[in-house]
Amino acid sequence: MNEHIDHYLRSHYQRHLDELGAFLRIPSISALSEHKPDMKQAAEWLAGQLRQAGAENVAIYQTAGNPVVYGDYAHRPGQPTVLVYGHYDVQPVDPLALWETAPFEPSIRDGKLYARGVSDDKGQVFMHIKSLEAILASGEQLSVNLKFCMEGEEEIGSPHLPEFVETHRELLAADVLLVSDTTMFGPDQPAICYGLRGLCALQVDIRAAKSDLHSGLFGGAVPNALHAMVELLATMHSPNGAVAVAGFYDDVQSLGAEERSALSALPHDDDAYRTALGLTALHGEPGYSTSERYMARPTLEINGLYGGFQGEGTKTVIPAAAHAKITCRLVNSQTPDRILDLITEHIQSHTPVGVTVSVQRYDSGLPFVTHLNSPAIATAAASYEAGFGVAPYYTRMGGSIPIVEVFDRLLHTPVVLMGFGLPDENFHAPNEHFSLANFERGLRTIAHFYTHLQTI
Amino acid sequence: MNEHIDHYLRSHYQRHLDELGAFLRIPSISALSEHKPDMKQAAEWLAGQLRQAGAENVAIYQTAGNPVVYGDYAHRPGQPTVLVYGHYDVQPVDPLALWETAPFEPSIRDGKLYARGVSDDKGQVFMHIKSLEAILASGEQLSVNLKFCMEGEEEIGSPHLPEFVETHRELLAADVLLVSDTTMFGPDQPAICYGLRGLCALQVDIRAAKSDLHSGLFGGAVPNALHAMVELLATMHSPNGAVAVAGFYDDVQSLGAEERSALSALPHDDDAYRTALGLTALHGEPGYSTSERYMARPTLEINGLYGGFQGEGTKTVIPAAAHAKITCRLVNSQTPDRILDLITEHIQSHTPVGVTVSVQRYDSGLPFVTHLNSPAIATAAASYEAGFGVAPYYTRMGGSIPIVEVFDRLLHTPVVLMGFGLPDENFHAPNEHFSLANFERGLRTIAHFYTHLQTI
Repeated sequence: MNEHIDHYLRSHYQRHLDELGAFLRIPSISALSEHKPDMKQAAEWLAGQLRQAGAENVAIYQTAGNPVVYGDYAHRPGQPTVLVYGHYDVQPVDPLALWETAPFEPSIRDGKLYARGVSDDKGQVFMHIKSLEAILASGEQLSVNLKFCMEGEEEIGSPHLPEFVETHRELLAADVLLVSDTTMFGPDQPAICYGLRGLCALQVDIRAAKSDLHSGLFGGAVPNALHAMVELLATMHSPNGAVAVAGFYDDVQSLGAEERSALSALPHDDDAYRTALGLTALHGEPGYSTSERYMARPTLEINGLYGGFQGEGTKTVIPAAAHAKITCRLVNSQTPDRILDLITEHIQSHTPVGVTVSVQRYDSGLPFVTHLNSPAIATAAASYEAGFGVAPYYTRMGGSIPIVEVFDRLLHTPVVLMGFGLPDENFHAPNEHFSLANFERGLRTIAHFYTHLQTI
Repeated sequence: MNEHIDHYLRSHYQRHLDELGAFLRIPSISALSEHKPDMKQAAEWLAGQLRQAGAENVAIYQTAGNPVVYGDYAHRPGQPTVLVYGHYDVQPVDPLALWETAPFEPSIRDGKLYARGVSDDKGQVFMHIKSLEAILASGEQLSVNLKFCMEGEEEIGSPHLPEFVETHRELLAADVLLVSDTTMFGPDQPAICYGLRGLCALQVDIRAAKSDLHSGLFGGAVPNALHAMVELLATMHSPNGAVAVAGFYDDVQSLGAEERSALSALPHDDDAYRTALGLTALHGEPGYSTSERYMARPTLEINGLYGGFQGEGTKTVIPAAAHAKITCRLVNSQTPDRILDLITEHIQSHTPVGVTVSVQRYDSGLPFVTHLNSPAIATAAASYEAGFGVAPYYTRMGGSIPIVEVFDRLLHTPVVLMGFGLPDENFHAPNEHFSLANFERGLRTIAHFYTHLQTI
């Protein structure tokens, strides 16, 4: 580890934490339109941080959605250019009652910083900026040209970033894309992620009568929107846990023997995993291990379901409307459009009697798998060793960062997924947190990468 | 029609409407504990109205729940005593957004008065009080002794009224129970109801992981509480619409040929019924007509279902908890305890893998059927003819007024169910309303009954 950089990071640790706190206090929830002003504020805050770190050409690019924040520091002609991608938007916070401290009031407990977005992805974005700051401020030299591209719509599927990337190919041109939005394998075990699942999302709305009806006066004679929803959704999975939508697995290739063997070599304890999650049993597609199920197999997941009375006690009503929110994780050649078509066909052929069903399509992204034999991956591995003292594992991640596939496809850059979160840090759930030990080790890992990458 | 009473009702029509408006403005929702003060206010308002009408011994009796309002006017020794039962509590108002005018701001449109509880049951309770007032104020004489018993927990299953009735047998002793909480057959067609369905209610809570999980990181490997809920609830009905809980129909006797024939003689048009409700098709238990289904067959109805994300857009979460609210309408020898036991056994034997399910039991009431050959029923029919100009139909009602069975069982009084609501007046739903024409005709019908019943 470079001692000047290390010294700088140590002596500015408290200020860095305070600055990260200010970032986390901005409730930049991209899914909820009332937070539009917060998105702008978060983008402006990031731009200010980039300038303060020494980045140049810092600008906020408007899109049809939330703005993209850009900055660069490109003074190593002939050396590789690294494009750092991250996002400043965060997930919604409900159920709010389950947060031990308020989601937008950062709080430290047991060496962990708690706040919405601290792990996914504000903390990790912040570490890249501070690594640049540390290198420049301590008089050291980058081995690469750096470009930053930070978006505000990752949590809603990056609807406007592909167009931005297409229309700004020159601005974003790079030799390698570096993303810190994946997780480590475990507390002291970093991982380089070589595959991400794709994503598609839809909302299913069922309508029965023109209004809710009295369950005494009408009950037994008329369709109930919730009965119809339950009947419909129950057809989407087999009792054994597999997805039962016709054609769903058509574009899924079976895992090769080599990859299955590599995945099964990763340490995993089903009992410990189950216990840590508070579950009485694990459940998933038959014929696959737990790691294969969440890393490399597709899913259809009901994320939300609602209709009728939700208050205290009872209400004798026949609900006229029911709503379900569904997302699928995709792998291999599955495409969001094809999967949404198949689900829509399934819904049409399974619509219960007496109701009308409509489908609304949301965000989507293609699956992504990269090769592991590039110098950038080797430098990433060496940087992890420098930061954490151990070699990284090579894993797939079950999550989706759709834009990674877009960068890969549009800019033809190799991708390095170098994450510092932990799988149990409650991304997308109450009490999201980030390990301060990994925050410190991550800063050094990134700085090492920025100062050591020579070729790609 | 007695012309003095008629004149009084005409000349005080606007004041009566204004007073009813004040009653309707009190948001006496018994299901929601934050409305406790409103329950007290509604009871006090009723007591004041009874006194103003001329009732005596008016008192508010505290119970372990909401109070019971009592009053009487008993000056005809030797003549029958009529106990009038009604309720001043109302259903919750959600979904609030679907109300065209605020539920507790009464509003008249097209000859209908809109407000929560106007039809069920505040408007009907109010008519009884105003009928007494009209008779006394116009110098006419009751043919009966009158007692009023108005409760504040009907919409949550009258949990404390049975104990009140048992401990106040003498106070409530009567020769006939008169209830206006059922519906007419149609706009100009009154009906005397001879049967009510029973009711039982439960809430099903499903728990999977200890907190919501990221659908990317964990999706495919862990149980989803909503998948489990959908899987469980889907087992409760056959695709043909029958209830599929083992033993559910064991205590249901088949309808006799005579009753089937009488019910089928009532005018009913499935197409008009379906169209009026805005449905693409009707749906119910095979082998029964629409009227039989909603009047005389039991049901299991999901009244509410919720879990996971309900906001705008999508949230890639695996919900840790799911909740369903269920009520059953019961007939014949079905009892709430037995049905709740059967459902609980069904849930235990159909619990999906990896989740825990708990069941909470709520309000309940036994089914009720009365005989039609009493003088009280004959006088009720004559009163309807006086008020509406047509003879009433004799019908069963699919709703439940559990306390009717309790009065019948504990006080051994014949029961007259004389309702003035219409089936499409949105009881328990947004935009509840009450026909002002039926309000006027009903006042005269009740006054006729009060002044003509001679024997029982």
